[in-house]
Amino acid sequence: MPDPDLRRFALNQATIPALRLDAAIAASARSGLGGIGVWRDRLEEIGLPAAKRALAETGLFVPSLCKSAPLTEPEGPDRRRLMEDNRRALEQTAEIGADCLVMVVGGLPGGSRDLADARAWMREGLEELIPYARECGVRLGLEPLHPMYAADRSCLNLLAQANDLCDALGPQAAIVADVYHCWWDPDFKNQLRRAGAHRIASFHLGDWLLPTRDLLLDRGMVGDGVIDHARIREWLFDIDYEGPFELEIFSELDWWRRDPEEVLRISIERCRPLVTAKEDA
Amino acid sequence: MPDPDLRRFALNQATIPALRLDAAIAASARSGLGGIGVWRDRLEEIGLPAAKRALAETGLFVPSLCKSAPLTEPEGPDRRRLMEDNRRALEQTAEIGADCLVMVVGGLPGGSRDLADARAWMREGLEELIPYARECGVRLGLEPLHPMYAADRSCLNLLAQANDLCDALGPQAAIVADVYHCWWDPDFKNQLRRAGAHRIASFHLGDWLLPTRDLLLDRGMVGDGVIDHARIREWLFDIDYEGPFELEIFSELDWWRRDPEEVLRISIERCRPLVTAKEDA
Repeated sequence: MPDPDLRRFALNQATIPALRLDAAIAASARSGLGGIGVWRDRLEEIGLPAAKRALAETGLFVPSLCKSAPLTEPEGPDRRRLMEDNRRALEQTAEIGADCLVMVVGGLPGGSRDLADARAWMREGLEELIPYARECGVRLGLEPLHPMYAADRSCLNLLAQANDLCDALGPQAAIVADVYHCWWDPDFKNQLRRAGAHRIASFHLGDWLLPTRDLLLDRGMVGDGVIDHARIREWLFDIDYEGPFELEIFSELDWWRRDPEEVLRISIERCRPLVTAKEDA
Repeated sequence: MPDPDLRRFALNQATIPALRLDAAIAASARSGLGGIGVWRDRLEEIGLPAAKRALAETGLFVPSLCKSAPLTEPEGPDRRRLMEDNRRALEQTAEIGADCLVMVVGGLPGGSRDLADARAWMREGLEELIPYARECGVRLGLEPLHPMYAADRSCLNLLAQANDLCDALGPQAAIVADVYHCWWDPDFKNQLRRAGAHRIASFHLGDWLLPTRDLLLDRGMVGDGVIDHARIREWLFDIDYEGPFELEIFSELDWWRRDPEEVLRISIERCRPLVTAKEDA
């Protein structure tokens, strides 16, 4: 039964990894959520037809498909293979009916210390993919990752960088903004305003725990950490953001160990006040 | 025997915590280093007269004293106590003959999620301390910490923030720049240029390891990680930086377990090419 409050709300399936994609879709729908964020490896596990069937049966939308292959490798056979994989990912994004492919652009290629060079290859890779994204009718969802991932996951670390890239790349580029990655940034509010509602393809929720015990797998449930979600929600109201909210928690130490139904229930409790439309709030 | 190559080079004593301050001073001098970065708790362990005697006997300089008390508490008895401690720290900075007190400004005060408010209190605290720093003849060394410490250690996370503050606070404010905290920042080079040589009170070396196993205590020895020290050194040449280089490694898992003499030897091997003057390089 769709819950009108939750029509813009999706769990990213990485939040409930114990469930196969079809089961995660069914559980999300039973809980009244509007959508689900999908990962490629989990999509391939059940195949596209089964995934589309599960989505059609439930009416869930897919805010974004995770994630691109790295763009930071220098030119050569490895880069060609990765770019081919990115084209395949754009096709999958279109086939699953998602607005955008989440671009996790890659960090330093093996053995390199040249971050400026990695960033130049990232930009070139994005430029190369834009025409194919247009052909597929989807957007490149540029997601800045926290600076602590600059070396190994993404050299795109600030909303300002993402906005600069979008300015250069045109309307086929968008931003996936995640409070976990951006909450500390003194320029967070200004860069959301600069982006404007249309450029933000999806807005990710999550929390920064104190202490954070692991750089990757210790993200917190909304409300358990230090992020001021209510204030950030106001910033999104101010720019008339009407896109999806996606809860994405990598939590090997806590939430991944719990019953997915419990995770869904608590996710909804915590996020309901944030994901309702302005007129309902 | 002072080594002319190493006259601007100091170990921050946190890199060899097994040694008491007087022993760390003696060991640094025997190894030919020019200076030593001092921590207040280790200074108080032996007392100021003993520390001054050890410094006078060896001729070592002190680039900076670590560290300030937090500035982000809201007004009240706790803040007054912390500000009083900061005044005492400024006196110690002068007494030990250091150029600056390293300002680790504090994160969110207990229970708060209001980062903008914490930053406002930080700024007010710095403004309050400036006249006393002038009286003591020392500078406030604003050290931006990595964004992963925004909640619990410092809401000053970017060189741009530090430069903005220095613009407002005048010549009694300076910057302590640490590659470990800033290496990922797309604006690192520009903000060093904006700061200029005089504003940089001390430049800290260290490396970002892959993987990083702990947010605080897994920093790497120069050369063991992904930071492009040679390029960053060029940026400092370009602005005619002639100040100190300080190697600061918090490494519970590796370097803190080794013989301090070995740490000193390897530190010198790795850092010698970075810390020599331009004309000698």
